[in-house]
Amino acid sequence: MKIGILQSQPQFGSVAENVTTALSQIATKKADLWVFPELFNTGYQFISKKEVLALSEPIPTGPTTQSLIAAAEKYKTTIVAGLAEREGKNCYNSAVLVSPRGHITTYRKIHLFYEEKRWFAPGNKAFEVYSINYKSERGGTMKCRIGIMICFDWIFPESARSLALLGADVICHPSNLVLPHCPQAMITRSLENRVFSATANRVGTEARNTEKLRFIGQSQVVSPQGKILFRAPEDKLSAKVITIDPKEARNKSINAYNNLLKDRVEHYYF
Amino acid sequence: MKIGILQSQPQFGSVAENVTTALSQIATKKADLWVFPELFNTGYQFISKKEVLALSEPIPTGPTTQSLIAAAEKYKTTIVAGLAEREGKNCYNSAVLVSPRGHITTYRKIHLFYEEKRWFAPGNKAFEVYSINYKSERGGTMKCRIGIMICFDWIFPESARSLALLGADVICHPSNLVLPHCPQAMITRSLENRVFSATANRVGTEARNTEKLRFIGQSQVVSPQGKILFRAPEDKLSAKVITIDPKEARNKSINAYNNLLKDRVEHYYF
Repeated sequence: MKIGILQSQPQFGSVAENVTTALSQIATKKADLWVFPELFNTGYQFISKKEVLALSEPIPTGPTTQSLIAAAEKYKTTIVAGLAEREGKNCYNSAVLVSPRGHITTYRKIHLFYEEKRWFAPGNKAFEVYSINYKSERGGTMKCRIGIMICFDWIFPESARSLALLGADVICHPSNLVLPHCPQAMITRSLENRVFSATANRVGTEARNTEKLRFIGQSQVVSPQGKILFRAPEDKLSAKVITIDPKEARNKSINAYNNLLKDRVEHYYF
Repeated sequence: MKIGILQSQPQFGSVAENVTTALSQIATKKADLWVFPELFNTGYQFISKKEVLALSEPIPTGPTTQSLIAAAEKYKTTIVAGLAEREGKNCYNSAVLVSPRGHITTYRKIHLFYEEKRWFAPGNKAFEVYSINYKSERGGTMKCRIGIMICFDWIFPESARSLALLGADVICHPSNLVLPHCPQAMITRSLENRVFSATANRVGTEARNTEKLRFIGQSQVVSPQGKILFRAPEDKLSAKVITIDPKEARNKSINAYNNLLKDRVEHYYF
């Protein structure tokens, strides 16, 4: 399966331009699944609730999701992309999953980071896993099970663990990382769950209030064995497609004696 | 609090010699808490159940635990040390906690690695946390809460998480690591739980059957902020004492909005 990781640099508030720029990348490179960063259409650093209300969109009827669906149809791909969702008076830091079939689902970020708690309501749905189709090299239709978590969800091991227990082959991880530790920690997340992880981060800086944020790039794909299959630079745009075999994530045995999920001893865990 | 990490190279089966060598280290360096490797007295690579039965000892009446208690009394220190425990017909890959007050508790490794499953019964007690005393620099008696996990327990995030939820300041981690990923992954364990982790690993090789094991050293102490405070070489003996403030582990807030334990959303975790 070909998985594409977009490392972009959204301009705050320039939604139409950010969407066009992102979709221009998937026009030129073929992938079965694309992962875009968190809030790829709006930018990150909101400074008022009013701003969030103005820039967030209903899903799937809003223009960003509609553009993503049109692109998924046109390029016969599946896209996981982070955007600000509006539902009534509530806004969520969400990620949509769209395919040529249309809008499949929305994940709402459960663990909000820092000032996101001022603007967004926390996710109100459990972690879930979805099957997507892809063509094998021999032409057959294959299934890949993908789970979604967003950025700061990484620091809670329960996020990736929940997705693995639900059967995820690939954890799609739209991000806007500012803290330094996540790229290395995602190696642990892949290892401990024996899953692929695909982190799509952004680059650049935002300083819309007194606090300057620098996003650390390093978008990456990590194998179930903890190998970094691809890592983007810290400060450059990137749209990289690599080939993975999702089935590698389905054997949780690491030797003749140990299976990472079956060896769990839940009755001793707090 | 001064914490000492012993990186040793046990000779298989030479229990008395291994214990004497280890204790000679704590005779020369002052620490409030020492962490020794997994199976520090016997060596690692058992090749028959008979051998395990012969080399394992009842706790606390066996000679190894008695020697550790005598050393703890003599040097006014607390020791966490891995050893093969015998209870009736069962053997456990255990770690004792001993202090000048005597034997405090035993942790029995819950997640056995590889052929350990042939020799040892899995731990049959939940993770627990214990308070130990140490003298502050001003002379007052302070408390440090320590949790114990052994080697391969690291790959299950639930191990360190359980200890953190129980209130551990320091996770003592006797190890005999052969896989390469643990030293980096323990940074994640410290970060995600905001605790100190103290991994005492061994060095050298064992090849008592057709499989040659190389132990990777790199014993280390990591801060709650994920900083490597000390890391030993891959292939050299080491007995290092460093100073930490256990109270650093008690504030789980990483900014004005996020507290790593309070932000958990258990009803969405599988």
